[in-house]
Amino acid sequence: MRVDGQPTRTVWMEGSVVRMIDQPRLPHEFRIAALRDHLQTADAISSMIVRGAGAIGATGAYGMAQAALEAPDADFHDFMATAAQTMAHTRPTAQNLFYGIRQVMNAIEAQGSDLEQARAAAVAAAQAVADDDAACCQAIGVHGAPLIETGATVSTHCNAGWLAFVDWGSALSPIYTSHRAGKKVHVLVDETRPRSQGARLTAWELAQEGVSHAVIADNAAGWLMQRGEIDLVIVGSDRIAANGDVANKIGTYSSAVCARDNGIPFFVAAPTTTIDPDCPSGADIPIEERSGDEVRYTWGWSDDGHFTRVRTTPADGPVRNPAFDVTPAALVSGIITEKGVVPATPEGIASVARS
Amino acid sequence: MRVDGQPTRTVWMEGSVVRMIDQPRLPHEFRIAALRDHLQTADAISSMIVRGAGAIGATGAYGMAQAALEAPDADFHDFMATAAQTMAHTRPTAQNLFYGIRQVMNAIEAQGSDLEQARAAAVAAAQAVADDDAACCQAIGVHGAPLIETGATVSTHCNAGWLAFVDWGSALSPIYTSHRAGKKVHVLVDETRPRSQGARLTAWELAQEGVSHAVIADNAAGWLMQRGEIDLVIVGSDRIAANGDVANKIGTYSSAVCARDNGIPFFVAAPTTTIDPDCPSGADIPIEERSGDEVRYTWGWSDDGHFTRVRTTPADGPVRNPAFDVTPAALVSGIITEKGVVPATPEGIASVARS
Repeated sequence: MRVDGQPTRTVWMEGSVVRMIDQPRLPHEFRIAALRDHLQTADAISSMIVRGAGAIGATGAYGMAQAALEAPDADFHDFMATAAQTMAHTRPTAQNLFYGIRQVMNAIEAQGSDLEQARAAAVAAAQAVADDDAACCQAIGVHGAPLIETGATVSTHCNAGWLAFVDWGSALSPIYTSHRAGKKVHVLVDETRPRSQGARLTAWELAQEGVSHAVIADNAAGWLMQRGEIDLVIVGSDRIAANGDVANKIGTYSSAVCARDNGIPFFVAAPTTTIDPDCPSGADIPIEERSGDEVRYTWGWSDDGHFTRVRTTPADGPVRNPAFDVTPAALVSGIITEKGVVPATPEGIASVARS
Repeated sequence: MRVDGQPTRTVWMEGSVVRMIDQPRLPHEFRIAALRDHLQTADAISSMIVRGAGAIGATGAYGMAQAALEAPDADFHDFMATAAQTMAHTRPTAQNLFYGIRQVMNAIEAQGSDLEQARAAAVAAAQAVADDDAACCQAIGVHGAPLIETGATVSTHCNAGWLAFVDWGSALSPIYTSHRAGKKVHVLVDETRPRSQGARLTAWELAQEGVSHAVIADNAAGWLMQRGEIDLVIVGSDRIAANGDVANKIGTYSSAVCARDNGIPFFVAAPTTTIDPDCPSGADIPIEERSGDEVRYTWGWSDDGHFTRVRTTPADGPVRNPAFDVTPAALVSGIITEKGVVPATPEGIASVARS
């Protein structure tokens, strides 16, 4: 997608350097971080310079390619095994991260004892992970765009845009595809408390791409649906169960319930890597409770230009902070994948799930 | 209700001085503002040192009583007419404010030409407005408490507590009544973006009264309902139409839809002064769109103790900020008033509406 008019990916590799958009600085400033070895790249993942399933997967793969370039001949395979462990521990629940690491390790193993070939294969495998992610997301856009009618207003939650992947995004990809095709589309962006990914990241992405949009308090989404101001909801997903239940950022469920109450289609856009065929239903998805300080505080930019936080609750007051929720398959109009749009049913999921 | 263990009202009058809790400083510090004449009191209303229908009504009445004490004999009635206009313009959509002003003006007119009696009647009328508000809210608690079973978890939105009235509150009154009767009750408090009244005020109130509670992001309410962690929802209201439709803080509608989806009772607590018999339905209630900066920024306390704001959206990025929504009567299990709990139907509303 475009930043200041220039095509940009979320993360890429130049020689032995991994470069990525420094996401915590958005939307206040656009800066590219340069990670010069695999340990710096691992740190960038754990400190959330990069976030989002697809972007983390590609970053993990690039980090492993860096490790292959760094690994001494005498100790190559031990070095890589240690690097794989280090990388996997940066975000211990990120499925795409493990996938990215495994792709690089498999490519190395396939080369046997020729270490120069192994290094080249590692770099190529990492690039393939990133390119595959971008291609998947672009295909999601192609399949999802016909769901958006000319002049439609689309509601979205959190950031399931290109910043969460390598390019294009999941929920936003059909919007970008429609917009680039000249179709008129407006997006209502839930700010997505407590971490404000909608207000910070989705709004920035859409502005950079020139897509008409407005940020709303999460509280306003249901009401705007009732008023007939929303035609369609598209959200991303962190994990899709075999029965079509969808885990995503907290607040997705409320949006789905309000959409159904108002007869508004509610679509989930995700690459098929998000499907977990071993997870029978949403009841089997553990929901992370994150730090209460995320609710007590809001992070943002002060008037004098510092990234800082303000506390709205009483000091150390009791809070709850479930970070994700599960939207039952019955509330989902369909799943937009790189292979096409399928119903949120066991059959629909099985028809596109990777084995 | 109690602050640091001491019984306190939101606003009261001592001699010619109106004293009130300085609400924007909550929850960080508890300070009492002293308003020494009716113009200072008017300023306190317009600058939102005091907010909430009942509290504003009592403050307006007290301010008019101050005006009566200030008004020169030679010019008494002109002075009062001007004061009434000044006071009414502080918050031009606050029904209770006009009611409070009118009560004092009526009391003055009833005294004819005896100005000392008129001044005494003004002070007595203002005190009656405040006492009536407190008594109404206490009665709401008595009628609503039986709806809360022992051990129940109650969800609430925004601040419909005693800070919005003179004492007891509306939505929180049944909770306080239950708690004081020794009934176990837990409250989940929506933070209520964009102005965070739940996080700032409701959480503080409940803590001062010793009621078990936790603040949640607005996004989490629906999910916690789905998980069976909420037994009952009680919210306040800004205006109730003759058909039972309820206008309240933005996000109330989403909460009501999620409650119904999960078979959870959804009650609205409000004094009958909130009912507008001349308003046929929610469609006739205009919804205020407030400043977009409320969405762009979050106000709170910095780590170094300043009340300040942080911006989460891109600078000057497009936003929408509807401040209220309308919950259709069909989603409301009942209206808890000072006269009892009535169904949200034309008949139920008519049975308690003031003429």
